[in-house]
Amino acid sequence: MANYKCDHQDVFFNLFDVLKIDQIEKYGLDKPSIKEILSEYDKFIENEIYPTRVKSDVEGVKLTETGVKVPEFLHAPTKMFYEMGWFALGLPEDIGGTPVPEAMAAVCRSLNMAANTGWSAYPGLTKSAMNVMRLRGDDFVKSTFIQPIMEGRWGGTMCLTEAGAGSDVGNLKTTAKPIEAKEGWYQIKGTKIFITSGDSDLYENNIHLVLARTPNAPEGTKGISLFLVPREKLDGSGNNDVICSGIEHKMCLHISATAVLNFGENDKCEGYLLGKEFDGMKNMFIMMNEARLDCGMQGEAQANLAYEMSKQYVNERVQFGTEIINHPDVKKMMLKMRAVSRGLRSLMLYTADLFDKAHEDKKWQSYIELLTPICKSYGSEQGFNIAVDAVQAHGGYGYCHEYGIEQFVRDTKIATIYEGTNGIQAIDFVMRKILKDEGKTLGHVVNDIKNAVAKLPQGYEAEKLIFENSLSAAQEAIGHISKCAASKQMNLVLQSCKDFLDLSGHLIVAWRLMESALISDTRLKKSEFEGDQEKHFLETKIVDFKIYTSQYLPIVSAYKDSITNAKEDMTTFNL
Amino acid sequence: MANYKCDHQDVFFNLFDVLKIDQIEKYGLDKPSIKEILSEYDKFIENEIYPTRVKSDVEGVKLTETGVKVPEFLHAPTKMFYEMGWFALGLPEDIGGTPVPEAMAAVCRSLNMAANTGWSAYPGLTKSAMNVMRLRGDDFVKSTFIQPIMEGRWGGTMCLTEAGAGSDVGNLKTTAKPIEAKEGWYQIKGTKIFITSGDSDLYENNIHLVLARTPNAPEGTKGISLFLVPREKLDGSGNNDVICSGIEHKMCLHISATAVLNFGENDKCEGYLLGKEFDGMKNMFIMMNEARLDCGMQGEAQANLAYEMSKQYVNERVQFGTEIINHPDVKKMMLKMRAVSRGLRSLMLYTADLFDKAHEDKKWQSYIELLTPICKSYGSEQGFNIAVDAVQAHGGYGYCHEYGIEQFVRDTKIATIYEGTNGIQAIDFVMRKILKDEGKTLGHVVNDIKNAVAKLPQGYEAEKLIFENSLSAAQEAIGHISKCAASKQMNLVLQSCKDFLDLSGHLIVAWRLMESALISDTRLKKSEFEGDQEKHFLETKIVDFKIYTSQYLPIVSAYKDSITNAKEDMTTFNL
Repeated sequence: MANYKCDHQDVFFNLFDVLKIDQIEKYGLDKPSIKEILSEYDKFIENEIYPTRVKSDVEGVKLTETGVKVPEFLHAPTKMFYEMGWFALGLPEDIGGTPVPEAMAAVCRSLNMAANTGWSAYPGLTKSAMNVMRLRGDDFVKSTFIQPIMEGRWGGTMCLTEAGAGSDVGNLKTTAKPIEAKEGWYQIKGTKIFITSGDSDLYENNIHLVLARTPNAPEGTKGISLFLVPREKLDGSGNNDVICSGIEHKMCLHISATAVLNFGENDKCEGYLLGKEFDGMKNMFIMMNEARLDCGMQGEAQANLAYEMSKQYVNERVQFGTEIINHPDVKKMMLKMRAVSRGLRSLMLYTADLFDKAHEDKKWQSYIELLTPICKSYGSEQGFNIAVDAVQAHGGYGYCHEYGIEQFVRDTKIATIYEGTNGIQAIDFVMRKILKDEGKTLGHVVNDIKNAVAKLPQGYEAEKLIFENSLSAAQEAIGHISKCAASKQMNLVLQSCKDFLDLSGHLIVAWRLMESALISDTRLKKSEFEGDQEKHFLETKIVDFKIYTSQYLPIVSAYKDSITNAKEDMTTFNL
Repeated sequence: MANYKCDHQDVFFNLFDVLKIDQIEKYGLDKPSIKEILSEYDKFIENEIYPTRVKSDVEGVKLTETGVKVPEFLHAPTKMFYEMGWFALGLPEDIGGTPVPEAMAAVCRSLNMAANTGWSAYPGLTKSAMNVMRLRGDDFVKSTFIQPIMEGRWGGTMCLTEAGAGSDVGNLKTTAKPIEAKEGWYQIKGTKIFITSGDSDLYENNIHLVLARTPNAPEGTKGISLFLVPREKLDGSGNNDVICSGIEHKMCLHISATAVLNFGENDKCEGYLLGKEFDGMKNMFIMMNEARLDCGMQGEAQANLAYEMSKQYVNERVQFGTEIINHPDVKKMMLKMRAVSRGLRSLMLYTADLFDKAHEDKKWQSYIELLTPICKSYGSEQGFNIAVDAVQAHGGYGYCHEYGIEQFVRDTKIATIYEGTNGIQAIDFVMRKILKDEGKTLGHVVNDIKNAVAKLPQGYEAEKLIFENSLSAAQEAIGHISKCAASKQMNLVLQSCKDFLDLSGHLIVAWRLMESALISDTRLKKSEFEGDQEKHFLETKIVDFKIYTSQYLPIVSAYKDSITNAKEDMTTFNL
């Protein structure tokens, strides 16, 4: 049975060689410090969290009369996670956090997700919920909620979905009525479903971020406000009329309750307005955008661990008188898995790093906005595909629970659905991030890619050609889509969004791998490495790029063809 | 919650319009009779088998001290299945069967798999095991085993895999020593793993087809012989020293034990030689080839039911003020799902029908051999992809057990692994079915495709062009592979097999959809249909073809590029 493994060398290559996070002055963290912290973090994850992964899947949470119970074996590691200061990593100093570069914090989140995705939702959503409180809360909110959360006593969730309001959040029915003589407080009434980690005894109290409508609110998303709704009353007088009335029996993430939450069934549920009335969607999007990036990272994290475990297996399993890694088709599959897994890592860390860059130059904010749906959709889907490949690499063993491989498939699938389905991401990507932006940001990224292509030295002629063809195909595809949009054939645009997102995902990941290959090529030529082991690693970065380019980029033209071939509005076809 | 549904119209279109099975004289079954039998069969499946599907997943089998127990709710339907004569369908008259056209029998197997894949393994493997007995057994075998199997009292399994012998069957260690003074009987000793439906109380006795080595047998596959090993002694004196010592906890198929079987731990296990000594692999391949086609059908069956259930869901679920089927991206996904699902159906039924044709003309036997790895690999993989799409179409609901949608994903995944992984299929396809055949059969199929393309009437210019490009790409790809083979660069060949199989799968399914579209086009032009409902159906067959061609065929060129781009032997790359 394969062991937990994080490829430190590749992580550090991304952080230092590509992103140079040790040079971000405000953090004052040099390479050795960053390496030491991350190594400690990874040790914690390997020793305390990873051993709970398969057990979490088998045992899962239980719904009892007093709420959702998380198995005992997760309580101690969770407590340690807070006590050792890992939750505080990446948070501002003024609330007791330890600021670190964004990409470094992202590595930590990724390790949480790799080691136990279901568990990672607890601190992950709590942190995102707290960020909304921190950024939009008034003094009462800040002074009341932040500290217990930082101490690991209180958790946080996001409550959007209702039975008739999934993707269509604007259709939600939960209501919030101002309570007289209790400023800022509202009476909340409604039922939310599919609430991830919606209840648990890991925390003394769960603080729900709930979207609801105030009296006479306009219809749709512009009439929605955001409320802080604690499960337990803040004065310690008991339950705030928030009841978990059911949990879903799901494909996976068994350790995180996907809860049905009844707010105010007895008209006694009170919530506090967070941010301004009617700013609910905007403020929830602070949390939502973090959650979307985390979905992509869920794919990236699972892919990388699934790859590492498969690598161990194919190097041990003997068939036909040799370890199966020596069979050409297995080798090819593994090389492809590595290229995608590392490609996703480089995309996720690049995007995380943009949050630091955006403090210096607003231009990078538009990069984040463009890349968010790519990270979410492409990351979750490719991560899922790699998990499926990992099962294949393990043969019959991959299909059995105890090896923990098929769990990757089940754990990863949800990331293509929650926080806005990948179909919704594609529409956001094309309609808002490209067409509404008049292609400006996309143009910047394409220029970045072209600049990188121009830097490819001798020996990369084949890759250069594939890139040039792919860029032309991308241009043709978006040209076609823009033309449809200009002539108001919106159904033609909408039916092409997902293909164009997938096309772009391939190109962007190939670009990130190209940047890594360029750095590696230079270092190899200048002999800037220590020993064979580092030389070998730099060579693998070039292999990743070449494999991804030769094996994955050809599909870019196929996506272009699928888009341009579809000349008719498909809603007019018979089903 | 969506209901079970089989698209009779499409099934009948395949059987009558495409394959004309009512014209196979020897069966003497006209259209109304075939329709009536299949409708009855489907009613049985819908009412008796489908209701056990989700329950089977939740409860699963239990291993007890007296063997594997199947939950009570499956016993009665299984008994009915035999009593109503459904097991006998498609079997020869001389053993009490009811001969029907092969494609018709295939429809029935597909319905079993759609309604409860795990359950379908019991009668499915039993039938395949019995076919080996029927075709290779001596008088003793025929007179002893066939009748109890036909009566549903005895079941059958196939036992190949051992811990060190998965894909590499030739490495197996199980031994068979002749028993003196008991002709034909051998003492069997060894442990088999991953035995599908390897034990159960659905049958009084399980007859295992076991591969083992006789004393002084040559090494590898040519030294393997096949034995019939009953779990219970035939004289009723108790267990034949065959013990199920463990069952796997798997991703799915919980209702079918994946068993560890110990044969002869106490040196008291007796098996009867089936066929000649050392003919074990050849004879097991009778069963194996059936099982491979069934793997493909497992994908086809799950895809079609998953599509039908998704269709119901997207026509009911309202978001943004309209049923989600009206959203262009959902519509496109559904159209693609239908095209693939029906395309797989047409491939599976076409291949099944070839067994009838092969009785008339041996040429068709080579078609079966060429198409078997395509059916197995492409069918299982595309079926899996459609199951994944079905989850996506259902959003969060798709991720929850109770709707039975995510079960399709879990149930289908195993089909890419067992009966020879899809990687093994690809090697079989390229090395044996194409290169060893010197491309003869492939050439025939390509000619068939070209003839169909030539028949495309006005209005199909775009599809014609895409087909011509795809055929050129296929030619280039196999030309490259043949050149590598000719220059003995076998690793380059082996690393390309899977891509070429996938490429071929796309082309062949597109071809089957094209044949259906040609027939539909003619019938529409000649007004050969009754009423709007049939007209509508014929139109959908044209849509399927156009969608598949415009949306899936572009990837054929991408596969060609991936193959020809890979100029280096990947086993030389660092992992």
